[in-house]
Amino acid sequence: MASNSSTAYYPHRHLLGIEGLSRPEIVALLDMAENAIEVSRQVEKKSSKLRGRTQINLFYEASTRTQASFEIAGKRLGADVMNMSVAQSSEKKGETLLDTAMTLNAMRPDIIVVRHSQAGAAHLLARKVDCSVVNAGDGAHEHPTQALLDALTIRRNKGRIEGLIVAICGDVLHSRVARSNILLLAALGARVRAVGPSTLVPRGLERLGVQVVNDMQRGVDGADIVMMLRLQRERMSGSLVPSSREYFHFFGLDEEKLARAAPGALVMHPGPMNRGVEIDSSVADGPQSLIREQVEMGVAVRMAVLEALAHHLPNV
Amino acid sequence: MASNSSTAYYPHRHLLGIEGLSRPEIVALLDMAENAIEVSRQVEKKSSKLRGRTQINLFYEASTRTQASFEIAGKRLGADVMNMSVAQSSEKKGETLLDTAMTLNAMRPDIIVVRHSQAGAAHLLARKVDCSVVNAGDGAHEHPTQALLDALTIRRNKGRIEGLIVAICGDVLHSRVARSNILLLAALGARVRAVGPSTLVPRGLERLGVQVVNDMQRGVDGADIVMMLRLQRERMSGSLVPSSREYFHFFGLDEEKLARAAPGALVMHPGPMNRGVEIDSSVADGPQSLIREQVEMGVAVRMAVLEALAHHLPNV
Amino acid sequence: MASNSSTAYYPHRHLLGIEGLSRPEIVALLDMAENAIEVSRQVEKKSSKLRGRTQINLFYEASTRTQASFEIAGKRLGADVMNMSVAQSSEKKGETLLDTAMTLNAMRPDIIVVRHSQAGAAHLLARKVDCSVVNAGDGAHEHPTQALLDALTIRRNKGRIEGLIVAICGDVLHSRVARSNILLLAALGARVRAVGPSTLVPRGLERLGVQVVNDMQRGVDGADIVMMLRLQRERMSGSLVPSSREYFHFFGLDEEKLARAAPGALVMHPGPMNRGVEIDSSVADGPQSLIREQVEMGVAVRMAVLEALAHHLPNV
Repeated sequence: MASNSSTAYYPHRHLLGIEGLSRPEIVALLDMAENAIEVSRQVEKKSSKLRGRTQINLFYEASTRTQASFEIAGKRLGADVMNMSVAQSSEKKGETLLDTAMTLNAMRPDIIVVRHSQAGAAHLLARKVDCSVVNAGDGAHEHPTQALLDALTIRRNKGRIEGLIVAICGDVLHSRVARSNILLLAALGARVRAVGPSTLVPRGLERLGVQVVNDMQRGVDGADIVMMLRLQRERMSGSLVPSSREYFHFFGLDEEKLARAAPGALVMHPGPMNRGVEIDSSVADGPQSLIREQVEMGVAVRMAVLEALAHHLPNV
Repeated sequence: MASNSSTAYYPHRHLLGIEGLSRPEIVALLDMAENAIEVSRQVEKKSSKLRGRTQINLFYEASTRTQASFEIAGKRLGADVMNMSVAQSSEKKGETLLDTAMTLNAMRPDIIVVRHSQAGAAHLLARKVDCSVVNAGDGAHEHPTQALLDALTIRRNKGRIEGLIVAICGDVLHSRVARSNILLLAALGARVRAVGPSTLVPRGLERLGVQVVNDMQRGVDGADIVMMLRLQRERMSGSLVPSSREYFHFFGLDEEKLARAAPGALVMHPGPMNRGVEIDSSVADGPQSLIREQVEMGVAVRMAVLEALAHHLPNV
Repeated sequence: MASNSSTAYYPHRHLLGIEGLSRPEIVALLDMAENAIEVSRQVEKKSSKLRGRTQINLFYEASTRTQASFEIAGKRLGADVMNMSVAQSSEKKGETLLDTAMTLNAMRPDIIVVRHSQAGAAHLLARKVDCSVVNAGDGAHEHPTQALLDALTIRRNKGRIEGLIVAICGDVLHSRVARSNILLLAALGARVRAVGPSTLVPRGLERLGVQVVNDMQRGVDGADIVMMLRLQRERMSGSLVPSSREYFHFFGLDEEKLARAAPGALVMHPGPMNRGVEIDSSVADGPQSLIREQVEMGVAVRMAVLEALAHHLPNV
């Protein structure tokens, strides 16, 4: 499935979003990730492809799983990985994102992986630093490695992405995961539905070729992939926050709703899950769930991205 | 003292507690630890025995010394070590211990070292993940590497453990250190006393062959080893918390009380110490104290445990 | 500029401050740092000079940039680096600085890099542990690697330090950066001015050969180097804290004030900057600014220091 020369096809210095990536560029990253899977399945999970490279994980929002995934990916490639979890207080101390980035840049890292609560933060960084930047989530904007790992998981289980019906369900409005997935799945020819209450689905998705469905039963109907989203309560203002019970009743995925999907339909969730809110445990842990495989693919995709970006550095 | 083939004698995939370990299994780990001591005494403190292995330190309770000890042990063996300090808040975010563990498991670590405030957490994890699990303390239940390092320290200083009188003194009730030590010392044939106020010694210890003594003078009398425990105020409810002054008067170890012990008696403490509460500085820093040696043995024991568990992985 | 045998000239086991260092010792460290710059400019930024060495960064005060700089320096030299950020709460738990240090010492690190809010903390540690200690800032006392990196930056840009007029401006009173710089610059023959309001300049600097100037215009007049300091509001008591607006008016460096300096004058700041308080962005980001180069030199200087101290260990 993968070719050794596929790195030639990712020509960018950064990975800031799925927006703007061509289909061959996306496929190149997925193919590289296929190769990376094997590294993590060996006893000695170690290559030396990024030996002596410095990777900084600059996280302004706490994230157990994404930071861990990038850290493991970098270390398995032999990079020196440095975690910087910057609390809000430190920002207030008078050091702006850009000053921090410029400071880190002067220490000559090869890659900065950045997560920030504000949309556009990764792009801002990329314009200022000399190294590669990977967007690990910027506000409600993009989270490209999540979309890539989702695509890789789908492709490995369905053999293809083109033509599949993918229902992205729940809090689409506040979700960078949804946004990046919509862009990627559209680029690869899937038929995407955005399913959720009208208050939680942004306007204008139809222009991206997305079918908007406000009823969960109809949204799931015939879908090959049911991709649930985390309810982002922390991004909602008080009166608009739905109760967990009510939300689960209408939009939580349980076995009954899942029965409406296509035969062999598969279930995904980017995690961390609110069990009993957007997804029932019987589905999350059931035979149609790909949730754990998504995590494994996450490490592989991040290894592929780090490796692809490293090819842009001199003498490589 | 140690033999190269001793790893053959630790047949388990996990180290969850001392309970259930046989005497030869315990001795095998202690023998492996003897070998590991030398690694840390060299200029280049590095082996490649765990090169390419991924070790995750998953700590739900902050612990400067235990986490540091496991981190140094793993790094000196060449493992890729990832620290995950999970605050309570993150747990509340809707991710349970098991979801976190399953997520990490999908990243294909070789070993998860876990500390958690609830008894049984490590066992729970071990049943769900594919990798090895080391219990670094679960509630008031067990802390097996502490008991192993204590045993190693005793054996190196006394030449044996069998037949020694070991007085474990203080807050036995809330202490996982006490519990693991009682089990280990009993398995190796020491004569164990639990010494403390009746409110801080659990019932039923006699069944484990432990002599319960509620008076410190009598408890220390003739002991070869006086093992002090940390007063776990954070695990007591308000009205039951003794005052430091009163506690020290009756149960704090000072030179006068220590004089009742056997000639050549040695003093231990798992740290961190409450100086002037359970132990006087003159004793803690005095010639009979093994407290610093315990810390050094801690790194060696953890290296031995990590190495022993790694032998259960394929192709090793 | 650098010679390979220069390590012979740094004969101390620790780096606790600039005080007490001779001119040749300072120059030796600067020369070693020149060599270290190149490591970070390669694709593979890695040497094996500290392979198997254990470096502990023990930070009692949060510091994004200094901790990062020491971490990157150690990792690029191949050391196993362990970060320990100790919050106040942990200190209160009953573990004193010395108990923590003795515990870490028993784990046989080669180097402890320590930052603490109390002056003298690094010296206290150095008297108790067996390993090397680097002072990464102790209260308002010293921050020797900052002074070394400033000197390296000046020397590379001006070709020399002797005879230069260096104006150290702002909150000199609370600044360990100022103190270490004054000692180093005096040792290397610069002509140092301390410039700031009388409430923020300590008494007695004249004895060190420093000229005290309470007016910013006169202080900057003819200076070759204008070194701005961070306003340390957190170390001031309520009523004495100047307003940002007022402070900037009188002591903030803008283009107008900078015009008074010597032709070709260069601007420095240890970071993090309070933009619009002690320095204007037009100056901080302008052509005379060395601020980013300071950060790069920071990594090089710390690599040099770590390497120099490692030479004091047996068999090296």
